Amino acid sequence: MSGFARLSTEHVSLDTALHRWAAVDMISTEDLPEWARSTVDGYAVRAEDTFGASDSIPGFLEVTAAVEMGRIPDTVLRAGQAAQIPTGGFLPSGADAVVMMEYTNHAGGSCIEVMRPITVGANVLERGEDIKSGETVVRSGKVLRSQELGLLAALGIDRIPVYLRPRVAVISTGDEIVSIEKKPRPGQIRDANSHSISALVSASGADPIAFDIIPDNANMLSSSLERGLDLGDLVVLSGGSSVGARDLMVDVVSSFEGAEIMAHGVAIRPGKPTMLAGWKGKAILGLPGHPVSALIVAQVFLVPFLRYLQGCGLVKGPLGHRMNAELASSIHSTIGLEEFIRVGLTRTAKGACFAHPVFGKSGMLSTMVKADGLVVVPINTEGFARGDMVEVVSW
Amino acid sequence: MSGFARLSTEHVSLDTALHRWAAVDMISTEDLPEWARSTVDGYAVRAEDTFGASDSIPGFLEVTAAVEMGRIPDTVLRAGQAAQIPTGGFLPSGADAVVMMEYTNHAGGSCIEVMRPITVGANVLERGEDIKSGETVVRSGKVLRSQELGLLAALGIDRIPVYLRPRVAVISTGDEIVSIEKKPRPGQIRDANSHSISALVSASGADPIAFDIIPDNANMLSSSLERGLDLGDLVVLSGGSSVGARDLMVDVVSSFEGAEIMAHGVAIRPGKPTMLAGWKGKAILGLPGHPVSALIVAQVFLVPFLRYLQGCGLVKGPLGHRMNAELASSIHSTIGLEEFIRVGLTRTAKGACFAHPVFGKSGMLSTMVKADGLVVVPINTEGFARGDMVEVVSW
Repeated sequence: MSGFARLSTEHVSLDTALHRWAAVDMISTEDLPEWARSTVDGYAVRAEDTFGASDSIPGFLEVTAAVEMGRIPDTVLRAGQAAQIPTGGFLPSGADAVVMMEYTNHAGGSCIEVMRPITVGANVLERGEDIKSGETVVRSGKVLRSQELGLLAALGIDRIPVYLRPRVAVISTGDEIVSIEKKPRPGQIRDANSHSISALVSASGADPIAFDIIPDNANMLSSSLERGLDLGDLVVLSGGSSVGARDLMVDVVSSFEGAEIMAHGVAIRPGKPTMLAGWKGKAILGLPGHPVSALIVAQVFLVPFLRYLQGCGLVKGPLGHRMNAELASSIHSTIGLEEFIRVGLTRTAKGACFAHPVFGKSGMLSTMVKADGLVVVPINTEGFARGDMVEVVSW
Repeated sequence: MSGFARLSTEHVSLDTALHRWAAVDMISTEDLPEWARSTVDGYAVRAEDTFGASDSIPGFLEVTAAVEMGRIPDTVLRAGQAAQIPTGGFLPSGADAVVMMEYTNHAGGSCIEVMRPITVGANVLERGEDIKSGETVVRSGKVLRSQELGLLAALGIDRIPVYLRPRVAVISTGDEIVSIEKKPRPGQIRDANSHSISALVSASGADPIAFDIIPDNANMLSSSLERGLDLGDLVVLSGGSSVGARDLMVDVVSSFEGAEIMAHGVAIRPGKPTMLAGWKGKAILGLPGHPVSALIVAQVFLVPFLRYLQGCGLVKGPLGHRMNAELASSIHSTIGLEEFIRVGLTRTAKGACFAHPVFGKSGMLSTMVKADGLVVVPINTEGFARGDMVEVVSW
């Protein structure tokens, strides 16, 4: 799917950039901090004045100033002198370390005793020690979490270049599908996919566009797809549970001039009937109609692709936090299919982590609700035995 | 913090319920599926008609009907008969299993050969097998992911009871703090905390309310806090890096009639100067002024509390995905303090996971950006050795 181009970029303000991906390397034009700062409450000193100090033979220093927050102190510290300094306070000239309050005593008048020797730079953040002017602060393709935003704020960077949020046309198809506010007639079922896939699209930082449900009818599907390609940066169709409906979807997509069917049927379970096509640089993803298959295929293909469009590297799905766990019961899989097994996770008091395959037929949506994640069984593996350490992608 | 009451609840539509927490047990009033459905393309049969079938001695069945999607079939299957059925099709009366297409052959006329015996219920999702009427679909306190929303959609449940999103007044304090669009004068620093804490509030499903920066002045802090308590469901102050400013914050909170200081100074690092107070059922959290400490304390106390207010159980922070990893270098910690160590995570091709303590002084924001998560060193532990398996809370 790396053949598709990323969207164009825009600049957003810091406060709307959460969970987007940086579109370029972001470079600082300042040193952080801009002046050496204390990281503790104590006394700014010249470190060499403390060499040899101990509880029994403390060093004596004269306190000649008190550093105020928000100002560069105008005093210059000379040998034998100290300046009281709060956490975050800027060091006076001449000082090169800070003694913590706890390791000092008042010694009468303006003098203090220092009980410990400290090294140059102790309890000090030097100018530019956090970030140097010219340094890359956030690399292109990195997701912006609270800490990235905090660092950018500290550097005064308020306009963040990010890729546009993909607009995703989400179209459910099928003669048997009715919208969720309707009471299905016998034989009909409600449209779970529009809602679950749209939620997954939102959770991936993209914007779903809601479409009406389309019956298994070539003309209606064709005009809905056309509108989807017009409004969306990509189109996600779901449906075609049965062979006939699957063929219909592929036929309709193929009928678009310049459309290219890139995959039709993939060696995964669940999700075999998945279709991927391209049309004028836009992707068309055909998910299976079954709600469980549709959601798993969306995890495997759609979520990584949506993140890729937003500037993240293209990584193999399913996406989530990867962790190792001990398999609590055996998993049997079919050679020739990459299989995604739903598991629940438990953790013992001692920290051992177990993956429990969720009981129940594959088609049950309730098994998805019970699952905390997926175990991927590779295509040429017959399964895993109870007690094996497996990788779980947790949601 | 479980002494604070949760917020009141509201009903939201399915499409706006993503990542909120169910406020009550949600019960189905329907069976899912409402009628036995096929999970494959094939032939609906009476299982006993296939007993003994094999490649060499196939069973012969007469195909008397074809099930259409979206309709309950009106045929009744009798001994020796089969009905063609698509994936998702509803079983005709009399049928109790589905033979996959792959295990059948056309045998001339309307007859098929069946090569395999199948058991009752094979390739069928029975009525109510996924969810039974009266069954709890989503338990109170469970977060709503795409799959929960899919299941609720399938059951026609479109009004979801959830707790209100907490409104959080985020107030930065300190004489040295200026807003990020300003160029700091010598001695001043930009307000990283408003932005990073607000982002963390948003990421926790709550709504931050932006406030002006307040200098270390009792009257101004008092009126800002009053406004924060008026507009917000809780107030997060940050600042008071130095002893004097810390005392000021506590004095101002204490001056509110009925305010109760519940903690002032906690045995964690970073984050010792944290303050927790309550006033008329609303929490006031005082974070350290230092951006790194503020973010870690917010992870440890604020994020779990915001989730608790929204219906999630109160769990000990920091919050994130918990995984085990091997420590790549030793960590030294102080007895008497629970310590949070920033780590980067790497994973070998074979799946082994390593936690690398991030190099750099604790006060550097850049170390937060380099970190993938935290290792918690318990209060009475001196640290962990290289090679120890540790639990990482990944962000």
